[in-house]
Amino acid sequence: MAKKFRGIYAALLTPFVGEEISTEKFQDNIRKYNETGLAGYVVLGSTGECVSISDDESERLVKAARETAAKGKKVIAGTARESTKLTIEFTNRMADLGIDAALVRPPSYFKSKMTKDALKRHFLTVADKSDVPVIVYNIPQNTGIALEAKLIVELSDHPHIVGLKESSGTIAFLGEIIRQLPPDFSYLLGHGSAFLPALLMGASGAILSVANAAPRICAKIFRLFTEGKIKEATELQLDLIPLNKAAMETYGISGLKYTLDVQGLYGGPVRAPLSPLEDKGKAELGELLKRLGLIG
Amino acid sequence: MAKKFRGIYAALLTPFVGEEISTEKFQDNIRKYNETGLAGYVVLGSTGECVSISDDESERLVKAARETAAKGKKVIAGTARESTKLTIEFTNRMADLGIDAALVRPPSYFKSKMTKDALKRHFLTVADKSDVPVIVYNIPQNTGIALEAKLIVELSDHPHIVGLKESSGTIAFLGEIIRQLPPDFSYLLGHGSAFLPALLMGASGAILSVANAAPRICAKIFRLFTEGKIKEATELQLDLIPLNKAAMETYGISGLKYTLDVQGLYGGPVRAPLSPLEDKGKAELGELLKRLGLIG
Amino acid sequence: MAKKFRGIYAALLTPFVGEEISTEKFQDNIRKYNETGLAGYVVLGSTGECVSISDDESERLVKAARETAAKGKKVIAGTARESTKLTIEFTNRMADLGIDAALVRPPSYFKSKMTKDALKRHFLTVADKSDVPVIVYNIPQNTGIALEAKLIVELSDHPHIVGLKESSGTIAFLGEIIRQLPPDFSYLLGHGSAFLPALLMGASGAILSVANAAPRICAKIFRLFTEGKIKEATELQLDLIPLNKAAMETYGISGLKYTLDVQGLYGGPVRAPLSPLEDKGKAELGELLKRLGLIG
Amino acid sequence: MAKKFRGIYAALLTPFVGEEISTEKFQDNIRKYNETGLAGYVVLGSTGECVSISDDESERLVKAARETAAKGKKVIAGTARESTKLTIEFTNRMADLGIDAALVRPPSYFKSKMTKDALKRHFLTVADKSDVPVIVYNIPQNTGIALEAKLIVELSDHPHIVGLKESSGTIAFLGEIIRQLPPDFSYLLGHGSAFLPALLMGASGAILSVANAAPRICAKIFRLFTEGKIKEATELQLDLIPLNKAAMETYGISGLKYTLDVQGLYGGPVRAPLSPLEDKGKAELGELLKRLGLIG
Repeated sequence: MAKKFRGIYAALLTPFVGEEISTEKFQDNIRKYNETGLAGYVVLGSTGECVSISDDESERLVKAARETAAKGKKVIAGTARESTKLTIEFTNRMADLGIDAALVRPPSYFKSKMTKDALKRHFLTVADKSDVPVIVYNIPQNTGIALEAKLIVELSDHPHIVGLKESSGTIAFLGEIIRQLPPDFSYLLGHGSAFLPALLMGASGAILSVANAAPRICAKIFRLFTEGKIKEATELQLDLIPLNKAAMETYGISGLKYTLDVQGLYGGPVRAPLSPLEDKGKAELGELLKRLGLIG
Repeated sequence: MAKKFRGIYAALLTPFVGEEISTEKFQDNIRKYNETGLAGYVVLGSTGECVSISDDESERLVKAARETAAKGKKVIAGTARESTKLTIEFTNRMADLGIDAALVRPPSYFKSKMTKDALKRHFLTVADKSDVPVIVYNIPQNTGIALEAKLIVELSDHPHIVGLKESSGTIAFLGEIIRQLPPDFSYLLGHGSAFLPALLMGASGAILSVANAAPRICAKIFRLFTEGKIKEATELQLDLIPLNKAAMETYGISGLKYTLDVQGLYGGPVRAPLSPLEDKGKAELGELLKRLGLIG
Repeated sequence: MAKKFRGIYAALLTPFVGEEISTEKFQDNIRKYNETGLAGYVVLGSTGECVSISDDESERLVKAARETAAKGKKVIAGTARESTKLTIEFTNRMADLGIDAALVRPPSYFKSKMTKDALKRHFLTVADKSDVPVIVYNIPQNTGIALEAKLIVELSDHPHIVGLKESSGTIAFLGEIIRQLPPDFSYLLGHGSAFLPALLMGASGAILSVANAAPRICAKIFRLFTEGKIKEATELQLDLIPLNKAAMETYGISGLKYTLDVQGLYGGPVRAPLSPLEDKGKAELGELLKRLGLIG
Repeated sequence: MAKKFRGIYAALLTPFVGEEISTEKFQDNIRKYNETGLAGYVVLGSTGECVSISDDESERLVKAARETAAKGKKVIAGTARESTKLTIEFTNRMADLGIDAALVRPPSYFKSKMTKDALKRHFLTVADKSDVPVIVYNIPQNTGIALEAKLIVELSDHPHIVGLKESSGTIAFLGEIIRQLPPDFSYLLGHGSAFLPALLMGASGAILSVANAAPRICAKIFRLFTEGKIKEATELQLDLIPLNKAAMETYGISGLKYTLDVQGLYGGPVRAPLSPLEDKGKAELGELLKRLGLIG
């Protein structure tokens, strides 16, 4: 059976003009991304500062993405809340807007009580009640919760749980479970520096922050991989790593937004508590974009 | 100058009947607590499953607490959100309901970007724009963010930042900053097993989960301390520790709720993803309540 | 039954002259400490850079301490190695030199395998085969292994396990177990900023790094506590905290050694990989010593 | 320039008969491994329980390995100690026995003081004074110290620092530095579930625990990779993962030793504090060996 989610998805940034979100700028960006070979978009991901915006703002962004995404481009929305009840309610509110799947990270505030059993019950209940397919989201660096390999395998039995976004980027984790997942289950890496190795080991695609900055390069790595051009794909993956590291790890979302601003897309400011980018970061990021041929 | 917040505050549980919150049960509990020597209440704290309920539910709880709290009992509400903007908006929505202070934990999703500077900017902006005094909330076990001693000292200069709830329970942390804080700054320990030592070292009070289960004992420890009866206070603190550990650490909020149910208060179920209490926990908690003379 | 270890013990620094240890300088220091009201000495503790010196150097230090310690002053030696076998061998080699007890931290290299059962077996075997009483040593900040409260209680049943040095400094941990320990078991805090609160809650003493720098103040806090002068003891504990924090946390062992050099004791250099103290540290530490009246 | 260390190295187990090491059993194993296509051996690695044995035992093992390793097979020894001085002394004692390189993990006891500068000074001093080439060893899961990417790049400038064993298994880490290392620098992965992806991204080989149990499979994955048979190599890597995970993570060294015992090699017992393998583990490991065709 064909996997539902294949290829490269951009974890879209949320554009602010002043203090407010701008669905116009958001749609301008998406229109440009529609031309780039991406398979689709994730709205309200970590990169989209999902935790920093209101439910109403979230709704406006999802609506805008759905309207603007080119035909065939999938739209996935991050819909996690800290309780099972609120997660279901928000997921279905987003489902009404026509998303293709909900991306759901685990509740994490009550860390010491998030046992495998508690997490399993949470995801199964959400999947039972969700009007759209669910993609489980493992991002321990932000949540402090590392989903166990065995839990993912167990969850993959549920007909409504169709994929995993794995942002720890641990290839061994992938290797441990990939053969135990249903054939149509989508394993999507969430780490821009390691997605080619993941594809080689069996991932069906990737959801990437760096795809906001370099959508064509990300899509090309995927294409080279599908064509069996492993050596060229590897070189391009290695080319991409310095930008991915600088934009996401060193400078974070404000750094990534800057890389859009200088390419004719809209990045704009981050919302506090994130900090604005300093000049040092601008210089370094500009240099990296140049080396990749993304700016002149 | 007198400290604004002295004595013992209960970090109130949120009662659910079935899936829904019950402000009636909540008010019944508060009426009973009004007779116990507590200095006031915290609504929407971690113990109140604040992250698991909606903004509207939160508003109803705060309103109910304000109405029902006896004269002179302070009402503090947890008002943190993940962005500075949303925190200010929600804080002022709660401020309109008449709370005495807002308890604000740091944003924590973007962990690696929550530098001392970013956190300082966040808290100062919230304090600038908040209509009520702010109590900073350090709870690294849930947030994954440990506020630095130096940051607390710097924040205490702001006229609107009037206190700290410190739930790591580290007495050395208290000792390092207590003399550097303004005289009217309230240092409130958030750990039921170590609040007497904190009082001895200079804390003005405590915000306690275990005060839901044993309000009179908590209040008595404080009173003995103020009367200089250190030896008796110590014995009572040691008496309380097994219940505090079992109710909060071992069994968590579902355990604590059970201790209310068997004492004629309303505990009721927890909201998922928290798990219901198993029979083993009931037996152990019952035994501990008996030893403390709280049930027959 | 009287506790074997009461009062304040200095966790002695190891003096180097150039690259080599100097037992002469070591003995000069001890002779001065003999006049200060300390209850005894710990040789080969973390503060003594125990992991940085050879077995033969270790032996020379223990021998020197035993010879020089005044009558009635206890000598404890850190004797842990990473395997049970090596720990027993080294413990008994030190036992032959006349130590009063062995201080044994848990093996920590194979972290993920150090279950409660594995650790219990280790400590019980060491206690069975050791020629001297054993003091268990909990120092998670260095070992990455946090001993469980329940483990300590279980180990305390062994007739040869006579005490605990607890260096995490968590007062709640103490409160949870203090009543479950045998009456003659010695609970010794290993944190210079929180030992008075620990004494109040039932600890029998403390093993302190800062006692190298301020032995008389440490001993006086203990004496005030035993005389029931809690308020004065508290003030002196608070006085001591800035030095303890600067000497041990901020600047570490090189900082602590500097505080000896300027007081007429011998501190000298640290052994690499520890780094020498920079001038900024010297200025700050000098200032703190002045405020405590330790230098003119 | 050719890399010094290419291919697959077994991180050899240390055989005990009763309480004592057995160099005979050790040599028997090595003689069998000599026939398997491995590039060489690491003695005194983590898998060799290096921290659990004495210096004299260590010396006997290295001597035995050097004598028995077939011509052309490299012998590397783990020589780290907690101080720079002791590390140099032990490294050169092992160098005298004819090792090809020393594998040196960072000192880790004084965690909070192991800054990038302190670690750099340590490794550079060791490299300066060592009589053999040095391979830096990153194993944060055991040491609690994660070496920074930038540190590795800086160290690789030293003519005596010729490689890295990287046991966190993070492919992104490899990707970030591989192009910044000298052409003859050996990047060796230390994770049996992810070494093929590492080879694809530029690693020169791997040092593997699982190579004790499945040397031919490990060597074959490397050979397939060098022949460009990526698909077959990938399938074999995925085949190997369940054994690697069970033998090293779930059951640990006692599990790995069992897999030797049932294959006609010598595994034997582990040294305490490690725990013996239980029957459940034997059954599971036996099953996994069968599936790989390693036992009948």
